[in-house]
Amino acid sequence: MMTGIQQDGTSTTAAVSGSEKSIREFLAIADIRVGGDRPWDIHVHNPEFYTRFLAQGTLGLGEAYMDGCWDSPRLDECFNKAMSARLEDKLRLNWALAVDLLKSRLLNRQNKARSKTVAKMHYDLGNEFYRDMLDPRMQYTCAYWSGPTKPTTLAEAQDAKLDLVCRKLGLKPGMTVLELGCGWGGFAHFAAEKYGCHVTAYNISEEQVAYAREYNKDLPVEIRLQDYREAEGTYDRVVSIGMCEHVGMRNFRVFFETIHRSLKEDGMALVHTIGGNRSVTNIEPWLGKYIFPHAMLPSIAQLNNAMEGLFTVEDWHNIGADYDKTLMAWWENFERNWPKHKEVHGDRFYRMWVYYLALCAGSFRARKNQLWQMVISKNGLPGGYATVR
Amino acid sequence: MMTGIQQDGTSTTAAVSGSEKSIREFLAIADIRVGGDRPWDIHVHNPEFYTRFLAQGTLGLGEAYMDGCWDSPRLDECFNKAMSARLEDKLRLNWALAVDLLKSRLLNRQNKARSKTVAKMHYDLGNEFYRDMLDPRMQYTCAYWSGPTKPTTLAEAQDAKLDLVCRKLGLKPGMTVLELGCGWGGFAHFAAEKYGCHVTAYNISEEQVAYAREYNKDLPVEIRLQDYREAEGTYDRVVSIGMCEHVGMRNFRVFFETIHRSLKEDGMALVHTIGGNRSVTNIEPWLGKYIFPHAMLPSIAQLNNAMEGLFTVEDWHNIGADYDKTLMAWWENFERNWPKHKEVHGDRFYRMWVYYLALCAGSFRARKNQLWQMVISKNGLPGGYATVR
Repeated sequence: MMTGIQQDGTSTTAAVSGSEKSIREFLAIADIRVGGDRPWDIHVHNPEFYTRFLAQGTLGLGEAYMDGCWDSPRLDECFNKAMSARLEDKLRLNWALAVDLLKSRLLNRQNKARSKTVAKMHYDLGNEFYRDMLDPRMQYTCAYWSGPTKPTTLAEAQDAKLDLVCRKLGLKPGMTVLELGCGWGGFAHFAAEKYGCHVTAYNISEEQVAYAREYNKDLPVEIRLQDYREAEGTYDRVVSIGMCEHVGMRNFRVFFETIHRSLKEDGMALVHTIGGNRSVTNIEPWLGKYIFPHAMLPSIAQLNNAMEGLFTVEDWHNIGADYDKTLMAWWENFERNWPKHKEVHGDRFYRMWVYYLALCAGSFRARKNQLWQMVISKNGLPGGYATVR
Repeated sequence: MMTGIQQDGTSTTAAVSGSEKSIREFLAIADIRVGGDRPWDIHVHNPEFYTRFLAQGTLGLGEAYMDGCWDSPRLDECFNKAMSARLEDKLRLNWALAVDLLKSRLLNRQNKARSKTVAKMHYDLGNEFYRDMLDPRMQYTCAYWSGPTKPTTLAEAQDAKLDLVCRKLGLKPGMTVLELGCGWGGFAHFAAEKYGCHVTAYNISEEQVAYAREYNKDLPVEIRLQDYREAEGTYDRVVSIGMCEHVGMRNFRVFFETIHRSLKEDGMALVHTIGGNRSVTNIEPWLGKYIFPHAMLPSIAQLNNAMEGLFTVEDWHNIGADYDKTLMAWWENFERNWPKHKEVHGDRFYRMWVYYLALCAGSFRARKNQLWQMVISKNGLPGGYATVR
């Protein structure tokens, strides 16, 4: 028999179930109330919420959201509260999670065939869909809400990010640049048009590559539909914006080795990646299942273990708080344009997408996740590297 | 029978010894010639140089220098050449080194009693001696040759460093600051006088503590003759300038734990330390024997392993190239004031000290070693951290 539910989220049965009690107490640690009236409080529409959360942890929480079992007026703030209180550390590691953890250590989940599936599943949702969420340059990575231009809109902040990367790398006309994982070609276009560089870019998503080729057709830009590990030649600069977090833990070393062999002796590379505060080997299970299969957020230690003996770290910039703003801007665009996509994707997709954006925004607002830009050189730059911001 | 030596450093015996041949070929990899006429070339006065270098690696090299077996017009450039060519990677790991390596893993060389010996041996050389080498604020750590004041002298660059640290920490009047390892009290004085802070500092060198207390007697500064691990209370800010590299590998965790428990929940800490490009467990053997016993230069990965779960890294600044300039300025001061100290310390000390300064300057010029300033926070600063340079 299904337990009935009242307006304020409490059970109508005389005795509150054990699951419900446990979850309510658990959420109270982060000052989140079931049926409360603050924006970050949650409203339970179906008591399955309690059992699914308890049995399956954050995976159950997310799936219960997709199924409409619960809501929050400010889902992003709800996640911020939960993560600031480090609730996830307090969730018992359940059996399924432990198995996942073991699997991620034993298997290389990211072989070349598999990484193509990832690109298909997520990035091939349709260029139209992303155009309606992202800025005009189609940057599906963290924007930079600071810098000399003092950006206030998403478009300005994405331009500021691209310009920041170019300035950090000291790009000059005629330089050759290798880009690993180029998305829709926004960086390649910017570096070629504004800094006069020749860009060679690798990407495994067919739809992105087609778009990027068309977008860059009048510029000295070559887009290759190939795995980054197949990169050939040596370049003045190597850049990778938002790919490292998708290569998988077992490939961090080969990722940096690829950069190393592709870089001239006196060259510089920039890696822009989401990172985590702790060295783990798995991603949050809901995100891993629905949004970024096989992704893994590297810690500083994991990144440095992977680049030791190859690179000198010249600069390490943390712009994690900028991802909160970026995700909120994407969410706003997504909501505004949703009527155009509603019919194709349906309501469960809508709830999945909102959950994804809110979860990520909250994780950056709580400073649980970071966005790192590292400038690295093969031999250390003579005289050192002057910080660019 | 001792082999005679000619002006150009070649043996007078008909057949050049095996050791000599090996060493000459080895140095040639880095374009260093025995008896050559470039400033970085070396001149051998005693062929023991070859056998000692070959048998004992860099320890033998340094001891042979102290004993006057060889010279170079620009010893710093000689080391820069050698390290830029990564000569040390090519030296076979000898047996003694392997044993040292093992010992450093098995033993905690840095118990409290032992760390006192380190402080005695090096820092208690006499305040007078350091006053003649350092800037007026007695900063025995890397200066900052950049920033808003555009420093050109050592004194200006050390002030710029202190100001950089204060600005990075956002110091405000009335804030409480804990300093771990305060040297002669230069930072405490600067932060109290220029930023109106209350500083509590820990140091185990009696002579430095006496000096620091006198220097800070009219300011809200308390200098404690105590080990940093005994720090008590919680503070708005915690700072450690040039101590982390001396705590020893087995104490990195306790070092960061001490900062963590001493910092308020919304506080910030700054750690300024020399670092190495690779995760190792020992220091260059000559430096370890004569200058910094039990010191160890941490890699980024080692530092992050030690702070995981405790801190969010807000900023990571590499000013390694500034240490080259700082060491060269110290060397100049040392040479100029040497006549005052010659009688007490003698010629072997002179050669040891020159070797130390030149070796270190060369290692930073070659970008083999780095100087890191990390800004860290307990929970991530809400809205992120704005880079200060």
